[in-house]
Amino acid sequence: MLEVRLLQGSLLKKVVEAMGELVVDANLDCSSTGVSLQAMDSSHVALVALMLRSEGFDHFRCDRSVSMGMNLANVSKLLRCSAPDDIVTLRADDDADTLTFMFESPKQDKISDFEMKLMDIQSEHLRIPEAEYQSIVRMPSQEFARICKDLSSIGDTVVISVTKEGVKFSTRGDIGNANIVCRQNTSVDKPEESTIIEMTEPVSLTFALRYMNSFTKATPLSNTVTISMSSDLPVVVEYKIAEMGYLRFYLAPKIEDEEDQS
Amino acid sequence: MLEVRLLQGSLLKKVVEAMGELVVDANLDCSSTGVSLQAMDSSHVALVALMLRSEGFDHFRCDRSVSMGMNLANVSKLLRCSAPDDIVTLRADDDADTLTFMFESPKQDKISDFEMKLMDIQSEHLRIPEAEYQSIVRMPSQEFARICKDLSSIGDTVVISVTKEGVKFSTRGDIGNANIVCRQNTSVDKPEESTIIEMTEPVSLTFALRYMNSFTKATPLSNTVTISMSSDLPVVVEYKIAEMGYLRFYLAPKIEDEEDQS
Amino acid sequence: MLEVRLLQGSLLKKVVEAMGELVVDANLDCSSTGVSLQAMDSSHVALVALMLRSEGFDHFRCDRSVSMGMNLANVSKLLRCSAPDDIVTLRADDDADTLTFMFESPKQDKISDFEMKLMDIQSEHLRIPEAEYQSIVRMPSQEFARICKDLSSIGDTVVISVTKEGVKFSTRGDIGNANIVCRQNTSVDKPEESTIIEMTEPVSLTFALRYMNSFTKATPLSNTVTISMSSDLPVVVEYKIAEMGYLRFYLAPKIEDEEDQS
Repeated sequence: MLEVRLLQGSLLKKVVEAMGELVVDANLDCSSTGVSLQAMDSSHVALVALMLRSEGFDHFRCDRSVSMGMNLANVSKLLRCSAPDDIVTLRADDDADTLTFMFESPKQDKISDFEMKLMDIQSEHLRIPEAEYQSIVRMPSQEFARICKDLSSIGDTVVISVTKEGVKFSTRGDIGNANIVCRQNTSVDKPEESTIIEMTEPVSLTFALRYMNSFTKATPLSNTVTISMSSDLPVVVEYKIAEMGYLRFYLAPKIEDEEDQS
Repeated sequence: MLEVRLLQGSLLKKVVEAMGELVVDANLDCSSTGVSLQAMDSSHVALVALMLRSEGFDHFRCDRSVSMGMNLANVSKLLRCSAPDDIVTLRADDDADTLTFMFESPKQDKISDFEMKLMDIQSEHLRIPEAEYQSIVRMPSQEFARICKDLSSIGDTVVISVTKEGVKFSTRGDIGNANIVCRQNTSVDKPEESTIIEMTEPVSLTFALRYMNSFTKATPLSNTVTISMSSDLPVVVEYKIAEMGYLRFYLAPKIEDEEDQS
Repeated sequence: MLEVRLLQGSLLKKVVEAMGELVVDANLDCSSTGVSLQAMDSSHVALVALMLRSEGFDHFRCDRSVSMGMNLANVSKLLRCSAPDDIVTLRADDDADTLTFMFESPKQDKISDFEMKLMDIQSEHLRIPEAEYQSIVRMPSQEFARICKDLSSIGDTVVISVTKEGVKFSTRGDIGNANIVCRQNTSVDKPEESTIIEMTEPVSLTFALRYMNSFTKATPLSNTVTISMSSDLPVVVEYKIAEMGYLRFYLAPKIEDEEDQS
């Protein structure tokens, strides 16, 4: 039997909505260590990886590992039926073909349960090796979202260049060129507003803005975002989820030639 | 001559917008007792009944009973030209083919008058007999609106079941089933947040969610809604209007067979 | 070289958005006295005139007069990439075919520059003679915007009639007639809320509401609007821009016959 309970149920809604633009169907993998999900986007370009550790739940019981296939748009529909302060419980019997979402109002005067049919989804689980990154930028997640949105009004790709002084986001399009520089800046009083750069080597990589904009749907999950880059690896855009885990997006850089053609 | 005046003019706007999704054209009936309106929705399934008693107006003069045909979308357009704190006056001469709406700002520095053409509308006035209902639920109107909206994302019909413990709203659809239970709950400090059940017999009836959602357009009129049900009668969904009257919606339950087919 | 700097950069965004509904492409004329722009709307009915005097800028350098052609939608796109409290600098080299917009956050931790390509635009500069107007109405800009919007839901044209007592806005349409009267009203405590009428002669002129509604896109620029009318001249609808200048819209009145036909 699976039964997991989260007092801060609105977190689940944010997690599912953060993935919804990229992922249509996916398996939710539950085991004694926690709940995780891994999926490629529909065009097989970006990878999404979610981890919610069991310790982060207010109650966590998972008798045996199970993989539950679901359509994320449907999950989103159900979770949108919960109020922001509802307690959320997910429950499934062993070998069941349904997953039940229960929402309880804090005063227990309204209790909703939604029984959702599960699906069989073929998926391969990629092993993502831990890597050392040449440049790691931690910055306010809203600032990153704003920059991706602003540059999209001008061009299709963004060049992210990291030096010790700061991180530069550049694009060009029919109407002109744009450069946005965020300087390293370690505000001590509001650490979530600081931009911090850790680097062993400067990096400059090009990405499709369309994907970056999809990643920023995770902005409500965390005040900060971490962007890890190496010249020969996919970028990792990571949003930490409270004390529980993370939502990570992986995207391969565009080869320079491709960018020039676009 | 007809001349009625309402200091809290925004109430009229709410009343007209509450009916606008169901009723296209209707006769506004004015007599010395007040202003009333009765209309079927365009598919002749639901009935809307409005009553605004003369005592509720700040000034009320109606020399002889008159029935004025109007298009509610046009009335809504005019009322949307009033500010939230405007004083609203309706005025019509005897046998006039127009109705004048006057809006006065509280400081009297802006005065608008709109003369609207009246229409001839054939309508039969149904006599709605007073009835004893087996179950009457009074609950927060926003909660009811939220439940109807949430269930609509899953199914087309709602089963409303009342027992002494509470009221249950259920639906099913392609993605699964849903049950939302509101427990009887008599918060003394905030009576408008309580859910109160009066029943002589448990009832369980099925309704089209589409209509229920249209009824909830009346939510801004009142903090609470009253749902009166008997197994052999149309449900009455009633929104009280301040000290003046009510807006009631009547809808026949679906026969079980129909629901199974859907 | 041209280099102008404005601490209150959001003002430029408002100016460009105020003109954007009427003007597609236009020349921005810069000289030592300031920045100005004059353009007809695409149907050559209304004229827009902008003036931002050099004293109003926090830094102003314009070595020689220059006329820079630009697409206002593109300028709007770029300015939307600035934050409300950004400092905005425009810079162009002599004979350059680009104009650079630089946005600096107040803490200087984010610096964006956008290089926009300029266009060649043929335009004739109209000389607008200074005139004496028979009636000048100064009123709250939001009130004027609200009235134009409200009347548009009923008719296509507005008759603006000024007398010593006040200004009346009238329209008629299929559903009926409307008259909105704003009385002269000189609230001393909040001068921006007053309606002030200066007149040598009463005036009553008819205008297309479509244009009036476009002019009111300038409402965010100023708390008040000034409407100057004479029976044989285009109306001038003017929004003052802080201590810097103005945005003026000119529109010829409709001939009575035309109005009757509509």
